[in-house]
Amino acid sequence: MPAKDVFHYQARHALEKDGWVITHDQFFIQSGGVEIYIDLGAEHLIAAQKERQKIAIEVKSFVAPSIISEFHTAVGQYIDYRSVLEDEEPDRKIYLAVPSDIYESFFQLPFAQRVMTRNQIYVMVFDVTQEVIVQWHD
Amino acid sequence: MPAKDVFHYQARHALEKDGWVITHDQFFIQSGGVEIYIDLGAEHLIAAQKERQKIAIEVKSFVAPSIISEFHTAVGQYIDYRSVLEDEEPDRKIYLAVPSDIYESFFQLPFAQRVMTRNQIYVMVFDVTQEVIVQWHD
Repeated sequence: MPAKDVFHYQARHALEKDGWVITHDQFFIQSGGVEIYIDLGAEHLIAAQKERQKIAIEVKSFVAPSIISEFHTAVGQYIDYRSVLEDEEPDRKIYLAVPSDIYESFFQLPFAQRVMTRNQIYVMVFDVTQEVIVQWHD
Repeated sequence: MPAKDVFHYQARHALEKDGWVITHDQFFIQSGGVEIYIDLGAEHLIAAQKERQKIAIEVKSFVAPSIISEFHTAVGQYIDYRSVLEDEEPDRKIYLAVPSDIYESFFQLPFAQRVMTRNQIYVMVFDVTQEVIVQWHD
């Protein structure tokens, strides 16, 4: 299993506080000849629709010296994991969990905004200190 | 400038042997608040159409212990660089340069094939020893 991300537990706690049930802590999927591990799997019961909303979360801490290098890797993992989910669990959406300070700085650059829009990358913004979800960006 | 990839010069020589003129060795572009360096820029005169075909090449050697990790990074860089080129040089296509042994193994897995098809990732396959282009995969 790959090492957990620096802010793995902060992201997990933020989801739990928001009413999500963590169903996978390291979400292992075998598909198309490879094995992948997404950081978290979670479910939420939407009472009004009597439906269970399912998501996968890849946590990115952005503590590496090069933010843009970590962004490249994050985008690649997101694209690759989404492709696996399309085949194995098409009703599960995947989100990139990003600390709010990085979301408010690097992710606001036109470059990052365009990459996210053009590639339909969904983001869950969380506050690392408060351990709460600040925003969902679909 | 980032360090050159292990097979940078083999990919460059393969392009030159194929009639391409290398216009950039480290292709620097500033756009949308970031600076990126794509490995190579090249041009080819298509006589029949009196047109100049322009490409950018990101070389990936796949010598890291984890091929799938290197694949994630390659996909992310490709997606991010393509987005920058769309804004700055919309007539330049970008290719991932991949050694033929990796293309014939890992890249044939259904996982890799689906990621490339779904995300329209173009690949230039080159033979590292012969320093020749084996295949263009658009």
